[in-house]
Amino acid sequence: MEDEKGVLRVIPLGGLGEIGLNMMVFEYEDSIIVVDCGLMFPEDYMLGIDFVIPDISYLIENKEKVKGFFITHGHEDHTGALPFVLKEVNAPVYGTALTLGLIEAKLREHGMLADTVFEMVRPRDKVATGPFEVEFLRVSHSIVDGCSLAITTPAGVVIHTGDFKIDQTPVDGEVIDYARFSEYGESGVLALFSDSTNVEKAGYTLSEKEIGANIEEILRSATGRVILATFASHIHRMQQVFDACVRCKRKVILNGRSMVNNVEIAMRLGYLNAPDGLIVDMKQLKNLGKDKSLLLTTGSQGEPMSALTRMAMNNHKQIKVEEGDTVILSSKLIPGNEKAITAMMNHLYRRGATVIYEKVSEIHVSGHASQEELKIMLNMTKPKFFVPVHGEYRHLVLHSRLAQGVGIPAENIIVAEDGDVLEISSDSAEKTGTVDSGRVLVDGKGLGDTGDMVLKDRRHLARDGMVIALLSLNEKTGELIYGPDIITRGFAFKDESPELLDGARTLVVKTLDELNSETKSEQLEVEKEIKRTLRKFFNRTIERRPVILPLVIEI
Amino acid sequence: MEDEKGVLRVIPLGGLGEIGLNMMVFEYEDSIIVVDCGLMFPEDYMLGIDFVIPDISYLIENKEKVKGFFITHGHEDHTGALPFVLKEVNAPVYGTALTLGLIEAKLREHGMLADTVFEMVRPRDKVATGPFEVEFLRVSHSIVDGCSLAITTPAGVVIHTGDFKIDQTPVDGEVIDYARFSEYGESGVLALFSDSTNVEKAGYTLSEKEIGANIEEILRSATGRVILATFASHIHRMQQVFDACVRCKRKVILNGRSMVNNVEIAMRLGYLNAPDGLIVDMKQLKNLGKDKSLLLTTGSQGEPMSALTRMAMNNHKQIKVEEGDTVILSSKLIPGNEKAITAMMNHLYRRGATVIYEKVSEIHVSGHASQEELKIMLNMTKPKFFVPVHGEYRHLVLHSRLAQGVGIPAENIIVAEDGDVLEISSDSAEKTGTVDSGRVLVDGKGLGDTGDMVLKDRRHLARDGMVIALLSLNEKTGELIYGPDIITRGFAFKDESPELLDGARTLVVKTLDELNSETKSEQLEVEKEIKRTLRKFFNRTIERRPVILPLVIEI
Repeated sequence: MEDEKGVLRVIPLGGLGEIGLNMMVFEYEDSIIVVDCGLMFPEDYMLGIDFVIPDISYLIENKEKVKGFFITHGHEDHTGALPFVLKEVNAPVYGTALTLGLIEAKLREHGMLADTVFEMVRPRDKVATGPFEVEFLRVSHSIVDGCSLAITTPAGVVIHTGDFKIDQTPVDGEVIDYARFSEYGESGVLALFSDSTNVEKAGYTLSEKEIGANIEEILRSATGRVILATFASHIHRMQQVFDACVRCKRKVILNGRSMVNNVEIAMRLGYLNAPDGLIVDMKQLKNLGKDKSLLLTTGSQGEPMSALTRMAMNNHKQIKVEEGDTVILSSKLIPGNEKAITAMMNHLYRRGATVIYEKVSEIHVSGHASQEELKIMLNMTKPKFFVPVHGEYRHLVLHSRLAQGVGIPAENIIVAEDGDVLEISSDSAEKTGTVDSGRVLVDGKGLGDTGDMVLKDRRHLARDGMVIALLSLNEKTGELIYGPDIITRGFAFKDESPELLDGARTLVVKTLDELNSETKSEQLEVEKEIKRTLRKFFNRTIERRPVILPLVIEI
Repeated sequence: MEDEKGVLRVIPLGGLGEIGLNMMVFEYEDSIIVVDCGLMFPEDYMLGIDFVIPDISYLIENKEKVKGFFITHGHEDHTGALPFVLKEVNAPVYGTALTLGLIEAKLREHGMLADTVFEMVRPRDKVATGPFEVEFLRVSHSIVDGCSLAITTPAGVVIHTGDFKIDQTPVDGEVIDYARFSEYGESGVLALFSDSTNVEKAGYTLSEKEIGANIEEILRSATGRVILATFASHIHRMQQVFDACVRCKRKVILNGRSMVNNVEIAMRLGYLNAPDGLIVDMKQLKNLGKDKSLLLTTGSQGEPMSALTRMAMNNHKQIKVEEGDTVILSSKLIPGNEKAITAMMNHLYRRGATVIYEKVSEIHVSGHASQEELKIMLNMTKPKFFVPVHGEYRHLVLHSRLAQGVGIPAENIIVAEDGDVLEISSDSAEKTGTVDSGRVLVDGKGLGDTGDMVLKDRRHLARDGMVIALLSLNEKTGELIYGPDIITRGFAFKDESPELLDGARTLVVKTLDELNSETKSEQLEVEKEIKRTLRKFFNRTIERRPVILPLVIEI
């Protein structure tokens, strides 16, 4: 499939087959650039895991090829793996000012700031590195300063949208760069890689500005204190809250570490504007009339230790939620968090507050393109080949069908998954193999040392708890010299179920009595027998299957 | 607050402060009737729990007063605790034919059929027991044969709606009994207890019939096989699927134990009609053209062992999902199940199927009244006092506000929770105390023997796993005669982290060396020291907090 222009190899390492964890490798001969480097938050079954990053074995094997990391925007599902990946593969990080500002703050926490080279760009800036030229193109998203990337390679131009929507009335007036996308489309785009997150949504995504108007309306009619929770990276949402507070004569109090940090970064870089005196210290709260303050906070997902949850539980030192207060959750109810969020809402109602959230009022809007916007992207860029990115498998399939609807031939669309190797030349695009890929689970200080077996054990422990049978035998005679003790964790306690555990103990003694002395001298055999017996016993008596751990000491 | 008509005591034991677990006690002098007796499925944090039932201590203490259980409809959140509660408090069970049919099937599984007295009623039937007269009133819901209860007591008439919606075009033509509700309203209702589940939804709930039309439209355009998953209790949904299949000339194959059982019960009782030959055996599937069959199945919630999940994973013996097949999830995505459901959907797309579900098409509708229907109920019955039921705390508060909007004075509304005692007389209604209440967690064959400590342990085990330090000391000398062995479950394994576990082992030896012989002779003290040391060690080295279990045998 080689032709005179050569072959571009594209390898998704994350984000194709899941939401989050976005990372894609573009390789031409001996040069690689990496687009995004994200994490994802763990699935329910990943017990005790803090977050998940992509398996980057392929990058490590080819680290001398890597020319740079090109980051489309500052969300953690596009940046969050950098502190781990840069340790293994150090290369310059390219991005716009706010994107880099947020990454710098994160790397500082990890003590890695000094070792990293940052290259700041503005939209329409072009970066040349190796055989690649990368142009950053303005798009709208739920964080400011988001960009698509137009990557010119010897094989042709490919466009990676990053996360985007097409907002006709963005808060900062910076509309998507129709001109440059269209110019690339006119001169010929070899392949488009486009965001599939919202492909199930018909029509257009609402403009961020409409949310601002709705929030202002709520502020105008609120007579008590207002607490507004949103994502700490949503600078435009914050700007709209600030503007509404100026007009409604409320002071803003910031709460939550990431909220305070991000406001500082965004104001310093000029992405967020507040008149002097608008933002006041928490200490001033008690001096302000009830209808003269707004608390802007994190904790919209009902995180157990967040300030908002503590307020809801009436357990916050400085802020007491009272009858007549209004709490606005200006954020998405992320699947998996509903129970925590609704529990928090119920507690806020107990305090006498009214809670306004996306199900009952238009106070949040997605940052991703709906079907009609996805069609605009396809029609502007007119790619020869199309690869849907950022989505679970069904999103990729549905985006493929949508692209066929606007005229991309089915045979020119590749539904790829993490680890697939795509080879794209001027006249063909195909999957030609795979590389190692997958998810690395990170917990505590460890990086990826939590394996499948450990998780399986945790799930088993979580379901039915554990029973230990502890005893000691004389190594020679097989005589029982200690125990058996029956010890439980996460299983019926002795105080509560004395007969059950006594029954188990008696059964272990009986099992030992029935073993011949030869078997008794084999510690492993004794443990196997005890395990088998107890498993049957608990299954029969109470239909449960705890982890059974016989501990036999031969002395 | 006594007057000549006496006082009705009303005690919610479940369903006020949560969705599910519905149960309410009505007590007048020495007589009690119980309305509904439901379970709920466990919350995420209740690891290993199968389901949850209400604490019925109050009923047990007063069991000689209990005249009967009045069941509004056959859903498990209104019936599922009966097998447990009837063992403690045996009294007749009143309900309509389908309601009792489903309860009988469940009691048969528990071997309790012979001991239970059933009293079948039809809508508008009146049951007199003790000082109560209970009339069953037709309503619409997502199961057929649902009723509200109008309970005439010496203190006045109270109405408990059960679960309801007001469907103007119900599938069986049986519209809500406007006449009787209104007659009660005219002659005077002392108190209304009304379903709050959907109080956050504006407007009206869609008619079940519209769903039937949408399903038929999908069948007409489907060229491959169709698999439709819904709740096994949703008889009207099944009827509409049957009717659509007759018109589209598809045979129906049933799948899933509860689906097969409930179809049998509903057809026997005349609630479900299928022409001869419509339902065929699974074996005939292979002889039918692809566009000539519909598989009606359970498993809409992505349950791991369900047939639909197995089909999605390409792991079902008889059915292979193929390119061009259509899977319809005609059901709610129950919060907490989204991840399992979307994972199943992704696998179905991998097989080449198209999945239609409530987010993308109107193929499911709620069985609960939205705001306008709730107002109709309030305006028809014109109660003096109002108590919102069936809902989390915020639903109850919002329903209270809605009732104020149609003219019920705030002081006549009681937002009560499980265990509150309400005393209602002709001129007052108030909370006068509480009784024991709460949730009993059921797993395996056990009833409520899983306590808070056990759950706490399971959560701890689930998060960070467990480390056991096993050793034996000479009782007299304190000399180490076995171990220490470091054993882990759900924590870094020896093979993977040899240095870490060796470090822990060395540390235990060092800790023992540093103890004086007096301390060493105290097994508990030794264990405490080891625990403290290891906890610090793992926290410092890898920032994790496994359950640490030192096991010291003194011989």
